[in-house]
Amino acid sequence: MVQFSDIAAQLEGQSIELPSWAFGNSGTRFRVFGTPGTARNPEEKIADAAQVNKYTGLSPKVAIHIPWDKVDDYAALGAYANDLGVELGTVNSNTFQDEDYKFGSLTSSNPAVRQKAIDHHFECIDIMHATGSKDLKIWLADGTNYPGQDDIRGRQDRLAESLQTIYDRIGSDQRLVLEYKFFEPAFYHTDVPDWGTSYAQVAALGERALVCLDTGHHAPGTNIEFIVAQLLRLGKLGSFDFNSRFYADDDLIVGAADPFQLFRILYEVIRGGGYGPDSVVAFMLDQCHNIEAKIAGQMRSVLNVQEMTARALLVDRQALTAAQESNDVLGANAVLMDAFYTDVRGPLASWRESRGLPADPIAAFQASGYQEKISAERVGAQASWGA
Amino acid sequence: MVQFSDIAAQLEGQSIELPSWAFGNSGTRFRVFGTPGTARNPEEKIADAAQVNKYTGLSPKVAIHIPWDKVDDYAALGAYANDLGVELGTVNSNTFQDEDYKFGSLTSSNPAVRQKAIDHHFECIDIMHATGSKDLKIWLADGTNYPGQDDIRGRQDRLAESLQTIYDRIGSDQRLVLEYKFFEPAFYHTDVPDWGTSYAQVAALGERALVCLDTGHHAPGTNIEFIVAQLLRLGKLGSFDFNSRFYADDDLIVGAADPFQLFRILYEVIRGGGYGPDSVVAFMLDQCHNIEAKIAGQMRSVLNVQEMTARALLVDRQALTAAQESNDVLGANAVLMDAFYTDVRGPLASWRESRGLPADPIAAFQASGYQEKISAERVGAQASWGA
Amino acid sequence: MVQFSDIAAQLEGQSIELPSWAFGNSGTRFRVFGTPGTARNPEEKIADAAQVNKYTGLSPKVAIHIPWDKVDDYAALGAYANDLGVELGTVNSNTFQDEDYKFGSLTSSNPAVRQKAIDHHFECIDIMHATGSKDLKIWLADGTNYPGQDDIRGRQDRLAESLQTIYDRIGSDQRLVLEYKFFEPAFYHTDVPDWGTSYAQVAALGERALVCLDTGHHAPGTNIEFIVAQLLRLGKLGSFDFNSRFYADDDLIVGAADPFQLFRILYEVIRGGGYGPDSVVAFMLDQCHNIEAKIAGQMRSVLNVQEMTARALLVDRQALTAAQESNDVLGANAVLMDAFYTDVRGPLASWRESRGLPADPIAAFQASGYQEKISAERVGAQASWGA
Amino acid sequence: MVQFSDIAAQLEGQSIELPSWAFGNSGTRFRVFGTPGTARNPEEKIADAAQVNKYTGLSPKVAIHIPWDKVDDYAALGAYANDLGVELGTVNSNTFQDEDYKFGSLTSSNPAVRQKAIDHHFECIDIMHATGSKDLKIWLADGTNYPGQDDIRGRQDRLAESLQTIYDRIGSDQRLVLEYKFFEPAFYHTDVPDWGTSYAQVAALGERALVCLDTGHHAPGTNIEFIVAQLLRLGKLGSFDFNSRFYADDDLIVGAADPFQLFRILYEVIRGGGYGPDSVVAFMLDQCHNIEAKIAGQMRSVLNVQEMTARALLVDRQALTAAQESNDVLGANAVLMDAFYTDVRGPLASWRESRGLPADPIAAFQASGYQEKISAERVGAQASWGA
Repeated sequence: MVQFSDIAAQLEGQSIELPSWAFGNSGTRFRVFGTPGTARNPEEKIADAAQVNKYTGLSPKVAIHIPWDKVDDYAALGAYANDLGVELGTVNSNTFQDEDYKFGSLTSSNPAVRQKAIDHHFECIDIMHATGSKDLKIWLADGTNYPGQDDIRGRQDRLAESLQTIYDRIGSDQRLVLEYKFFEPAFYHTDVPDWGTSYAQVAALGERALVCLDTGHHAPGTNIEFIVAQLLRLGKLGSFDFNSRFYADDDLIVGAADPFQLFRILYEVIRGGGYGPDSVVAFMLDQCHNIEAKIAGQMRSVLNVQEMTARALLVDRQALTAAQESNDVLGANAVLMDAFYTDVRGPLASWRESRGLPADPIAAFQASGYQEKISAERVGAQASWGA
Repeated sequence: MVQFSDIAAQLEGQSIELPSWAFGNSGTRFRVFGTPGTARNPEEKIADAAQVNKYTGLSPKVAIHIPWDKVDDYAALGAYANDLGVELGTVNSNTFQDEDYKFGSLTSSNPAVRQKAIDHHFECIDIMHATGSKDLKIWLADGTNYPGQDDIRGRQDRLAESLQTIYDRIGSDQRLVLEYKFFEPAFYHTDVPDWGTSYAQVAALGERALVCLDTGHHAPGTNIEFIVAQLLRLGKLGSFDFNSRFYADDDLIVGAADPFQLFRILYEVIRGGGYGPDSVVAFMLDQCHNIEAKIAGQMRSVLNVQEMTARALLVDRQALTAAQESNDVLGANAVLMDAFYTDVRGPLASWRESRGLPADPIAAFQASGYQEKISAERVGAQASWGA
Repeated sequence: MVQFSDIAAQLEGQSIELPSWAFGNSGTRFRVFGTPGTARNPEEKIADAAQVNKYTGLSPKVAIHIPWDKVDDYAALGAYANDLGVELGTVNSNTFQDEDYKFGSLTSSNPAVRQKAIDHHFECIDIMHATGSKDLKIWLADGTNYPGQDDIRGRQDRLAESLQTIYDRIGSDQRLVLEYKFFEPAFYHTDVPDWGTSYAQVAALGERALVCLDTGHHAPGTNIEFIVAQLLRLGKLGSFDFNSRFYADDDLIVGAADPFQLFRILYEVIRGGGYGPDSVVAFMLDQCHNIEAKIAGQMRSVLNVQEMTARALLVDRQALTAAQESNDVLGANAVLMDAFYTDVRGPLASWRESRGLPADPIAAFQASGYQEKISAERVGAQASWGA
Repeated sequence: MVQFSDIAAQLEGQSIELPSWAFGNSGTRFRVFGTPGTARNPEEKIADAAQVNKYTGLSPKVAIHIPWDKVDDYAALGAYANDLGVELGTVNSNTFQDEDYKFGSLTSSNPAVRQKAIDHHFECIDIMHATGSKDLKIWLADGTNYPGQDDIRGRQDRLAESLQTIYDRIGSDQRLVLEYKFFEPAFYHTDVPDWGTSYAQVAALGERALVCLDTGHHAPGTNIEFIVAQLLRLGKLGSFDFNSRFYADDDLIVGAADPFQLFRILYEVIRGGGYGPDSVVAFMLDQCHNIEAKIAGQMRSVLNVQEMTARALLVDRQALTAAQESNDVLGANAVLMDAFYTDVRGPLASWRESRGLPADPIAAFQASGYQEKISAERVGAQASWGA
């Protein structure tokens, strides 16, 4: 039996990067609802993100999104973040909100549009140099809505060429991570729809090109932990975008829809060497708090990842292997479930307190008056996906 | 063998109602792209809809959406439509774009919000009296995003009560049609997610309450034609919202994603008495032309329905029944497929010309210069889902 | 906060009926693997089922399947069961394993086949009288593989007629429960594919006709707890067939694939009055232990239901309602998750011991030597779905 | 506009390999129904397959399955086939019907089981040398039913090693094609679940290892033509297993469930150079005629592929490219749909007659009396998946 005390040390240093855009408003095509106190600019998003880290100790980095988080002085933005105890992380590009990208960006058959999209990534790389960011994350909305609309094969070739041009520009200590997504916003075909495509594309680029796995970007029924195991085996798992979903890319709080799936994913991460100080895998959230409180929502998210990591670390690997090798189906499953069903919340609360963190981070935050303060102070246009 | 000449008469009088909102911009949560010439107000939407009818003869009615199509004088709007050769049809309510509805409308646990939503439907009924519309269509965005967020059972009871209040208000020659949808914008539970729920709710209301079937609102793999057959059997199929999808509620052009499915649906409509002068089933489009031309897109849509109706009418029912009753699986399937594979486009073009319509409605429209004219003339804010 | 001691009394009398066929071999179309010690006849299946009840106290009833469990003397079979501490429960009919049913049974267009299927149900009712069974469970494999193969609407009408004939035959203290299933073994259409169809059919029959919900029989993404809430609201939830699935009708151990879903289902059962001494809902397993130990597999299953029932009972309903009514999305969700994450295994072990049951039923069974004994003793043809 | 006469020459030499097992009985886990006249042994299966080729001219090869088609003298079997106008094709291995493979074959943690599975493939390679077969097709049933049951990552590594051993044994003019499948018979994880895994595995083996794409082996909603385009681009599409499905791996007649999908797939095949004399892609059926006539069912299948190939060849590539490059969404889609809706059945019938084949192959076969003859003559045990 593995005890919490056996695994506590492995919880040190866990870091789950926060997306700046989670602190702006988001919604569906039907409506973007507002929430009192929502951040109005990059600085306020970072300030809110810093609150999450202050109470949980789990999120020392904030990912930014260009152009949503465009500022004149990135060094100043970085210093501002540092003052609040966090640093700027992954830079996310955006090639889906400009009229020019209506029919594609890096895959466009129009060379001018393609160049514009490439230039945007060059700008992101410049920002990375200014902020000290290590990862350039590319998620493409590119795709088509109708059969025949464009040439699937030609787009794939143009994508390869565009990516190569961008990859050649990143610094020797920087990485390019390519995210895949099953569908949306394109409804017939998506240019990077599955891990196989992302893998084939980054494998052609070079060592510092890797795959980003968003847990909400798969076909119904897909075994995500299998993909985790496979990408780790192939040495190409670069990062996670965590969230959860019941239907499509719902972008709900990670662990909210299927906690057991999150557990299985984290178990395979650990099993495959993707967790810990030697791992190259970056962990990040990518969520939308459409109707719930945003700062508390992000806290709930990183705590879910922490709690489930603890459970996954509790798996008695020796007993598991023994049961597996003797084809004891029920016995092996029982070893895994025993860890999943273990309530780690009490030990984690004590562990937090021993590190000067509140036992209950969300309650501590809610008692702090921060939310009330920003709800009162922040008047005027709130940030959203558009800005 | 059934010939086109045998079924031509049955094509007379076919009517597919157009949604006014198809002529405004639409998009995804990521971006709403503009299209040159997009209508800016209800009048321009109706004018565009009238073009579809002018060239196809298939769409004499235009459904409106409140508040998107709110005007001061509905009688004047109706007269405007009549002048253009069309009339106003179904009135669609909207309880998903007001901050008050963030957590529900007709199902809200807040009596004030519920009353507001009911009052909105009363307003819609008043408009129906002014426009002479027969159908009040209710699609609810109500639902929750997280398990536990609200009480599923309590919401269902409140929904029943709200619907009863609305139903009691409609005129004796008016109908209430309740649409169901699998998911979106709610991501954990939807209050009217399936035909069973819609059926149970309208059955409790009375004779003039019926189900609206949107072809894009089902779980993956759902056999939609079975639902058509069942609802016709139960006497509760009120109307269709036609569109097509590959993944979720993609709202693509009807017949674009799976033409054979559209054929099967229309076959069951005909088989079950849902087509023709004696049918109470209303046919309507509900689509989004996010990236393609809108007027031509609507033309393509109604033509797809017409062409597939012709194919479905061509099914040799006598031969089919004979093969079915002798359990000749391949033979029965072949009778159906023979009709589906018959190219009706030539005969339909002749049929159109014999009625003073252009053989190729889309080409005729494109040659008319209308699109270029509106693209040049319509400057300023284009209509979209929000207005 | 609700404590285990607050809900312990409600665990008394929980009963999860076992399917006799879970103790025979099962498999896929590719292979049915054997397992040492598998029962060879109805008596041995019942003896194995009695072991589950002996160690868990949770399964005093065994459902039988006709003709798989056909015997000459049902009174003797019942007495044999009683001697082992269990009784015979639901009678399951079978209209899918006879050449005559190749193209349908209760829905067949051939009157002779339909009568044969009806007669089979009459036989099942006779057996129910002999065994004292209360429920006749009908799951139909009826459907078609190809569009056009048969007339969907006509089959539905014939189904209604066949069911009425059967319903008229059941005793005044007996019930007919109609199970629905999304697909398999039919691959184009299934005659009872969803809860709506099952509901419409049983509603037409009368008060003692109800719906059976098999947790593995839905389209991907279906919110099953919603259906539970709806059927309880409509007064038509008759019984459960518990199991779990990742893809289709996988028939895995209940709670194995998505424990949180099982929790949500049981919460809605409790919320809607479907649990406890006054409930009319029957709980049953319907699983296949294709590769794992069968008796221990059934134990794991009923324990999963018991553990998750305890968690669902632990939900602080008062706190939940308060959070729901104030639209505190995160707070309401947290109340639910708190119960789900509470480790009830220790308290349940003590509770069991206080009732003379082993703290760890599976370990106790495995230590008993029963499995080794039957593995050694039972030579010859093992029971399977075919016999 | 492309005319039939423009593409007729490209239809020459089209070959769709038939699976010997399609002429034996098949079914679901619920029941394998018999069909009069079903073949009883490899010779009769080949004789039936030869009928398909005799009337359609489309299927000069018959794939065999070991051990189902095991004979003492493969040279004699090949000669027998040649006498009937066909030849033996792909050799399919089977590692799912032996008790030893209950927990895996090429992925087993048991070295003895693994070696047995490897040896089986060596035997298949020996048979290939005897029959002159070029392709060894490996579809693995390997996987697990419960989380934790076995080590996903370890199995993947063992799979790589096993495949390497097999690959090293094939002749220099032989190929290994690795099929992937989403799920079934394993219900939690499958060792080769997607094209990405198959691609990564065969890419590691060498040039003569390729991917086999079975059109029924994907998650719901998967865009299969995208995978076709991608694999052709990567030079790794080895072969097709054609069939169709509404839900899971239904193994229905190709083109029966979604003819438009088949059209899109064939269009991408042609677009990517996968069709014609220079292509290395092998086309094969893999279907189950559970309830319909088998020989006629195979005829329907190859004719469906031929008809849809003709439609795909009819696409006006020049017009399509022009519309695509000008982002004319509706125009480009219309070019594609025009080809799909063109009724090629008449021209194909004439084309067949000009080659000495019957205009209506199925009718000609049915008029030949062959089916009646075998139904009368073939008494005794029919072949099925088990033998």
